[in-house]
Amino acid sequence: MKNNRNRQVILKSRPADIPQADNFEIIVSDVPDLRDGQILVQNIYLSVEPAMRGWVSSVANYSEPVRIGDVMRSFAAGEVLQSTHPDFKPGDRVMGMFGWQEFAVVGPGAVTRKVREDDLPLSLSLGVTGINGVTAYFGLLDVGQPRPGDTVVVSTAAGAVGSAVGQIAKIAGCRTVGIAGGPAKVAQCREQFGYDAAIDYKSGDIEAALVAACPKGIDLYFDNTGGAISDVVLRHLAVGARVVICGTASVSSWNPWPSGPRAERHLLVKRARMQGFVIFDYAPRFEEAIARLAQWLREGRLCYSEDILEGIEHAPGAIATLYRGENTGKRLIRIG
Amino acid sequence: MKNNRNRQVILKSRPADIPQADNFEIIVSDVPDLRDGQILVQNIYLSVEPAMRGWVSSVANYSEPVRIGDVMRSFAAGEVLQSTHPDFKPGDRVMGMFGWQEFAVVGPGAVTRKVREDDLPLSLSLGVTGINGVTAYFGLLDVGQPRPGDTVVVSTAAGAVGSAVGQIAKIAGCRTVGIAGGPAKVAQCREQFGYDAAIDYKSGDIEAALVAACPKGIDLYFDNTGGAISDVVLRHLAVGARVVICGTASVSSWNPWPSGPRAERHLLVKRARMQGFVIFDYAPRFEEAIARLAQWLREGRLCYSEDILEGIEHAPGAIATLYRGENTGKRLIRIG
Repeated sequence: MKNNRNRQVILKSRPADIPQADNFEIIVSDVPDLRDGQILVQNIYLSVEPAMRGWVSSVANYSEPVRIGDVMRSFAAGEVLQSTHPDFKPGDRVMGMFGWQEFAVVGPGAVTRKVREDDLPLSLSLGVTGINGVTAYFGLLDVGQPRPGDTVVVSTAAGAVGSAVGQIAKIAGCRTVGIAGGPAKVAQCREQFGYDAAIDYKSGDIEAALVAACPKGIDLYFDNTGGAISDVVLRHLAVGARVVICGTASVSSWNPWPSGPRAERHLLVKRARMQGFVIFDYAPRFEEAIARLAQWLREGRLCYSEDILEGIEHAPGAIATLYRGENTGKRLIRIG
Repeated sequence: MKNNRNRQVILKSRPADIPQADNFEIIVSDVPDLRDGQILVQNIYLSVEPAMRGWVSSVANYSEPVRIGDVMRSFAAGEVLQSTHPDFKPGDRVMGMFGWQEFAVVGPGAVTRKVREDDLPLSLSLGVTGINGVTAYFGLLDVGQPRPGDTVVVSTAAGAVGSAVGQIAKIAGCRTVGIAGGPAKVAQCREQFGYDAAIDYKSGDIEAALVAACPKGIDLYFDNTGGAISDVVLRHLAVGARVVICGTASVSSWNPWPSGPRAERHLLVKRARMQGFVIFDYAPRFEEAIARLAQWLREGRLCYSEDILEGIEHAPGAIATLYRGENTGKRLIRIG
């Protein structure tokens, strides 16, 4: 426990849009003593998510903003070192909202789950068998309701969520078309994640490529980007299409609120549905999804990619790297 | 049969956006002889719908555009004069796609339904027990899925569809807030159609009025307008809200395609759904809706308003009157 010293990443200032390294500060604190019912977790992996932009924003959102001076809210995975709670014992592997810090003293409410897949790397509990995997699973299957034969288009198709969406859609019998930025990610979409077609939105005519890849229109669009990419996709929906709004990564700021082509007439003419979801609403069903995802991993039907930075000093700048598209897989910080 | 002379309203030129009187021409033709299986209908009421703008548009749509020189596509209600089809006999009251003309020689495919509610005026078969009523019924109940206690907001709340939506939502146990243009329609919303609150979008601060009328947010928005009114409503959705896209009457042109505030983040943060529908998809279930609507009419639980013009010479300019908001009820042309 390094003499009870705990390095923590705190929110120093509220970013106007995408959080940058200088919005955070690394401080060193003492690890507090455990109160009754608490556990001490040593974090081994810290997660980095596009959604963290929203967590530090003061704009209306689905969760209270992280306060200035607080430890940055984050999923993390680690090991229980001490426990005064009957459900946890030293050595348990846990994943939860432990924040960007080395050690977390938390009550059981902060624990999302015990990680029981001992045959799989702990890091996966933050990715493909964690929040990204369950987001893909419920967003695609519950909100998107794919049918075999559907043409499914995924934006940020090589990302931690998108890559799982594409592969689960294939398992569900769909044809998959990925949209990603740059030739390396496009190749990864085709070769690693099995997309039937992949489109580089940074090069050439994305609309022509999309029409060529989706000759019967788009039955299901899993949207991680919003913005200009989605504007093109919406013009080519099939009748009865479903648009799943998972994130708006391509929109750099919602203050002022941006404008774009109106969507309502596409939805009317195509009898289409556009629906947003927030994965925390599915918390009671996480184990159902994780059991399936873990099984597909063991069977080799589901691949993943990780892009891990070493050391907590990389955390402050890590959210911005996602929005610059620098990561080539699930972005994690290893600190243990 | 007036010596076999048939006055017909034909499409003379394709309008850029809202069809005006000079896009049509009234001609006189002979009534053709019946071929085997056809019926001759004398139209008594011609319908006028906001959706007719789409039917004459060359822009992508849910139906083939009416061709230049063809009789204007329209619902109409009338009486069978002659029949060579075993399912129809002279005297039957029928409603269907008979077009803006005095006499229609059609096959059975043009007949939407026989009008069997002999205790109700024939004109209602084009309104509250016709396409407007079933649009309200399936749009609200099937697409919108209201729950008792929901706050339901309706745009064009005093219109042929909107007024039925508001009343059916009340029957379903919801609180209803209507948005309409001008003090007369607002009064009609409150007094005739039983809205709990009604807002005049032409006067004062519509956003402040909406917030005051919907202190817990909007659970269901039945949208007949699109555009600026909807932009305000979307800012005040409740978690889990459903937005039913029935029409886009407030958008005067889709060429060029208009822009507006992006909707995707509202849907994400509020886990909300926005869904379009086209009533023709529900044709196999029309009788189910009409039976309920007719019963509610007989029980006095459903009111309607009609605004009838006398004479086929009013048809050419009638669509434009809807978009100017001049009608105070379901707009019909009586010609029989």
